[in-house]
Amino acid sequence: MAAVTEEKGTISIHTENIFPIIKKFLYSDHEIFLRELVSNAVDATQKLKKLASLGEFTGELGDLKIEVSFDKEKKTITVSDKGLGMTGEEIKKYINQIAFSGAAEFVEKFKDKTDAKDIIGKFGLGFYSAFMVADQVEIISRSFTAEENEAARWICDGSTEFELSAATKGERGTDVILHINADSEEFLDEWKLKGILDKYCKFLPVEIRFGTTQEQEDDGVDAEGKPKYKSVTVDRIINNPAPLWVKSPSELKDEDYLAFYKELYPFSEDPLFWIHLNVDYPFNLTGVLYFPKVKNDFEMQKNKIQLYSRQVFITDEVKDVVPDFLMMLHGVLDSPDIPLNVSRSYLQSDANVKKISQHITKKVADKLSELYKKDRKDFEKKWDDINIFVKYGIISDEKFYDRAKDFTLLKNVDRQYFTFEEYKEKVAATQTDKDGNVIYVYASDPGKQDSFIQAAKAKAYDVLLLDGVLDNHFINTLEQKLEKVQIKRVDSETADKLIDKDEKMESVLSADEQQAVKTVFEKAINSKTMTVAVESLSPQDLPVVITMSEFMRRMKDMAKLGGGGGYAFMGNMPDNYNVAVNANHPIVQKILKAGSEEDKNRLAKQAYDLALLSQNMLTGADLTNFIRRSVEMVS
Amino acid sequence: MAAVTEEKGTISIHTENIFPIIKKFLYSDHEIFLRELVSNAVDATQKLKKLASLGEFTGELGDLKIEVSFDKEKKTITVSDKGLGMTGEEIKKYINQIAFSGAAEFVEKFKDKTDAKDIIGKFGLGFYSAFMVADQVEIISRSFTAEENEAARWICDGSTEFELSAATKGERGTDVILHINADSEEFLDEWKLKGILDKYCKFLPVEIRFGTTQEQEDDGVDAEGKPKYKSVTVDRIINNPAPLWVKSPSELKDEDYLAFYKELYPFSEDPLFWIHLNVDYPFNLTGVLYFPKVKNDFEMQKNKIQLYSRQVFITDEVKDVVPDFLMMLHGVLDSPDIPLNVSRSYLQSDANVKKISQHITKKVADKLSELYKKDRKDFEKKWDDINIFVKYGIISDEKFYDRAKDFTLLKNVDRQYFTFEEYKEKVAATQTDKDGNVIYVYASDPGKQDSFIQAAKAKAYDVLLLDGVLDNHFINTLEQKLEKVQIKRVDSETADKLIDKDEKMESVLSADEQQAVKTVFEKAINSKTMTVAVESLSPQDLPVVITMSEFMRRMKDMAKLGGGGGYAFMGNMPDNYNVAVNANHPIVQKILKAGSEEDKNRLAKQAYDLALLSQNMLTGADLTNFIRRSVEMVS
Repeated sequence: MAAVTEEKGTISIHTENIFPIIKKFLYSDHEIFLRELVSNAVDATQKLKKLASLGEFTGELGDLKIEVSFDKEKKTITVSDKGLGMTGEEIKKYINQIAFSGAAEFVEKFKDKTDAKDIIGKFGLGFYSAFMVADQVEIISRSFTAEENEAARWICDGSTEFELSAATKGERGTDVILHINADSEEFLDEWKLKGILDKYCKFLPVEIRFGTTQEQEDDGVDAEGKPKYKSVTVDRIINNPAPLWVKSPSELKDEDYLAFYKELYPFSEDPLFWIHLNVDYPFNLTGVLYFPKVKNDFEMQKNKIQLYSRQVFITDEVKDVVPDFLMMLHGVLDSPDIPLNVSRSYLQSDANVKKISQHITKKVADKLSELYKKDRKDFEKKWDDINIFVKYGIISDEKFYDRAKDFTLLKNVDRQYFTFEEYKEKVAATQTDKDGNVIYVYASDPGKQDSFIQAAKAKAYDVLLLDGVLDNHFINTLEQKLEKVQIKRVDSETADKLIDKDEKMESVLSADEQQAVKTVFEKAINSKTMTVAVESLSPQDLPVVITMSEFMRRMKDMAKLGGGGGYAFMGNMPDNYNVAVNANHPIVQKILKAGSEEDKNRLAKQAYDLALLSQNMLTGADLTNFIRRSVEMVS
Repeated sequence: MAAVTEEKGTISIHTENIFPIIKKFLYSDHEIFLRELVSNAVDATQKLKKLASLGEFTGELGDLKIEVSFDKEKKTITVSDKGLGMTGEEIKKYINQIAFSGAAEFVEKFKDKTDAKDIIGKFGLGFYSAFMVADQVEIISRSFTAEENEAARWICDGSTEFELSAATKGERGTDVILHINADSEEFLDEWKLKGILDKYCKFLPVEIRFGTTQEQEDDGVDAEGKPKYKSVTVDRIINNPAPLWVKSPSELKDEDYLAFYKELYPFSEDPLFWIHLNVDYPFNLTGVLYFPKVKNDFEMQKNKIQLYSRQVFITDEVKDVVPDFLMMLHGVLDSPDIPLNVSRSYLQSDANVKKISQHITKKVADKLSELYKKDRKDFEKKWDDINIFVKYGIISDEKFYDRAKDFTLLKNVDRQYFTFEEYKEKVAATQTDKDGNVIYVYASDPGKQDSFIQAAKAKAYDVLLLDGVLDNHFINTLEQKLEKVQIKRVDSETADKLIDKDEKMESVLSADEQQAVKTVFEKAINSKTMTVAVESLSPQDLPVVITMSEFMRRMKDMAKLGGGGGYAFMGNMPDNYNVAVNANHPIVQKILKAGSEEDKNRLAKQAYDLALLSQNMLTGADLTNFIRRSVEMVS
């Protein structure tokens, strides 16, 4: 073996091996080929327009529409543009050298006179995605600099060999003809192609005509008297080259935004409001974000934001670009500064993406603040639909909390709305406990907690309505943020104990009587998870009240949510409840005076069942028996 | 412009432009670099072993461990192997030519004597992923064919320029040294690197040592009397080079499978059973699939199957490879035949993947059938945990239904289990209606439907328990599959009408009395969504029974699930119920005889409230009022 001699050199790429990778492995989705070819056609057209505007091209621009068509018989798909075209030499330069991006060169050449924004191509690989679906790809191109009819034809069968020859072409521009391979014949279908164009090309900045064949009634009838039909090629413009988001907000009216929303989501209800984004520095971002009316199932609202790069659709997975709590918004974002990998569908985490995400958060907070200040009543009307965004933001983003804390509303069970400040002021006088903490009381399900709500109201407490999917987390965040505020569910204690003011109600029972009552109930209930205590509640309260302490319930909720952090074990613990027997209720006197053990037991059981009922805890055979007993009592 | 002259040629790749793409854009995840470099080291080691086994290498193999280490000061990460090494010429061939895969060449050369299975490399691009995290990459390699100390050193700064020179290296093999770039310093961390190795390299077939530095107590104390510590390099083997799935099932005991499960999922309960996959033809697939005990939240069980390709971890998103209904299984799959794109993390849909998915379905059905036949009682015990897989399979896969129909069990509310055939036999005599349809009756929530279950049982009907998340769909599928079987929820009719046998019960009321009763109840109920009818039920039944017809409820359920197909409008319709007033119940007599309208109304209201109660429909203020009324009646 020879020793190593020192040398410097250049890394080379093994073309034969990388070509299949580019063709087959680079893009996960085969349908991408159409996006790439149409994007190239748009670039060729935009470049010609640019040259015309610079005086470098003085001929007729003419009809610049791009045309996409297919031929099921010949198994071809053709993309034609009337852009600047290529000479044979240019084909050799741009096509035969993979990854030599003409776009970069063009932008470099005219860097003082143009900007990269109008040119889509970046990697110089897109053209080769055609080989994902085609056995053979043909280019017929006539440059704007070429003599009449002097065109070039390039053909390649997917190996690394190509053929270049002279050809005749009536019009300026480039036709790319794909000879579709056997595995990809699904693309030779009107609806399939239309679908792909709708998805990726709907808002490209040059008009795109999609040619299809339709049967139309011909004049007259045939020899046998049946109506005659003829095949007609029908061209439709499939795109909107000037979508709303590229326009200036000052030119647009509410109707325009609503119409664009319908264009994006034909079957949706009108949105509540929207934000038009338009940033130049330090990154480029345009777009419109709509606040939808959030229905119960907010999972279904996700992944509705579409991400574009220079009007080319990229993806509807906008994770990272849009903060998590705004993923339920609808609309479009367009930024050439979002770094995409070559397949364009993967976002790569980087500083720009983070900045964009922060900018969106700020804009959303500003918009909400503006709506709040402009018309408080109207903001309250929207609150039921937007509170989920705001709460999610408050839970997950410290900065958003700071921006939102002045317009976030709390709603009570009587449908009144308060800011944090207003609410504290409202309840401070009546709901401050002996340690100076203001206790907020809330209901998570007014239908089920009605008797508790009524008991709290009887004590002049206000009851908040916190029944949303995020409200458990929201409550935790609020307790951390608001000073000297504690939040308790309305059924976590008997109404008397909800707010501990160190007031004692007198019991009409002696200590012995209390013990006797306790024993009767413990026997009647006969459950280890029910802790019985005789308490002095108001005679107007129920004879028995069942509660689960706020602490215990929160632990249980955590465990249910699968929160790791040591809560999991709580999931296996039984539900422990407190049973408060109301010493001052007439039934208790009746129990004490009842003659037989059986009567005492029956009365205690009925009072306990009614308490279970008010907590929705009476089910199964117990409920059936209760109902039967009640029916008998009525009959 | 010159006319185009005809020519043929070869497409070239613009190295300078594609190099950044390979470096930066090919892989979405930067951490992949470590997988790629360690995989290369494994290949180099396996190739040497292969040459030794073929007699082409006759030296000492020695310790073949791969070593991964890092130096926080120097900002380097090093991957070293003792494999076959490279000469300067080989470096030029394999490294300087991007996408020239040495693996392909090696397999080709020894194609009669080896098989591709042991060699990981495929695209020849992996090495360059190092530049995602490194400014500079150095290779120091000594070939097994080289003279002592005669090594080659290659260095590249991420441009397309490289330098090659002679070097001295004591041992055979290759060191790859990455000089980590400023953006990637996060990788210079013990836990980060350990985590990546654990994820991707845990089961690679060559032992991998990960070297870290730890502080250990030194002898004695320092000058100031404080205990002395010294830095010690601790090497740990981080992988299991012979994971269970590469072994033959015949060598393995239950304990081995359970131990491997714990290795994969340290905090999980033992699985119920497992399937060892081992296929050579027409595709290569090994692996072990475990059936976990499915807890309530089965979403959390998803994405637990790990996909490997020749013991290299690829992804835990196995969509398409594993049929949807088996995504909740746990375990590993290893197949070199699953087509991956170059970044390896994207699966590409193709015929092989489909075949693999079908094979897995078949194996699962075979295993379940075997368990059922071997020990019916034990199978019944497992049923509560596995029924969700089986039902999902039955709903979604026609073929699986055919395989599963003989071992699928139906469970009734008394926890008895029946096959489809057994069940039909059991209930045919009592539950056939006048048209010859066998009516299966089921409960979806026995706690809430208890009074209906008791009423059905009183008529000697059997009640199935179908309370799972998929049971709505399962019921629809069963009705399509089982001939002359209809399935009704126990509360969809009064017990008498559940199975229409054309038997009429005599009413004790005259037509006028019936009308009078109806009017009283309509007034008391006062709701348009409640349709009152006076029916002749048994005197033992409840005075009022509220039902929602099977048809109406199914439509409502569909709408809730957001099923398009025209059901959506149902979601906006009010809940319509039937209220059956039992003409034969004593209360009805009492109502007819009651003196005042007020008394009639009060009695009807109480009977209606009790019916609401038994359907869990009495909530909010209505429930509170009911409870207060009941308390007063007791006191």
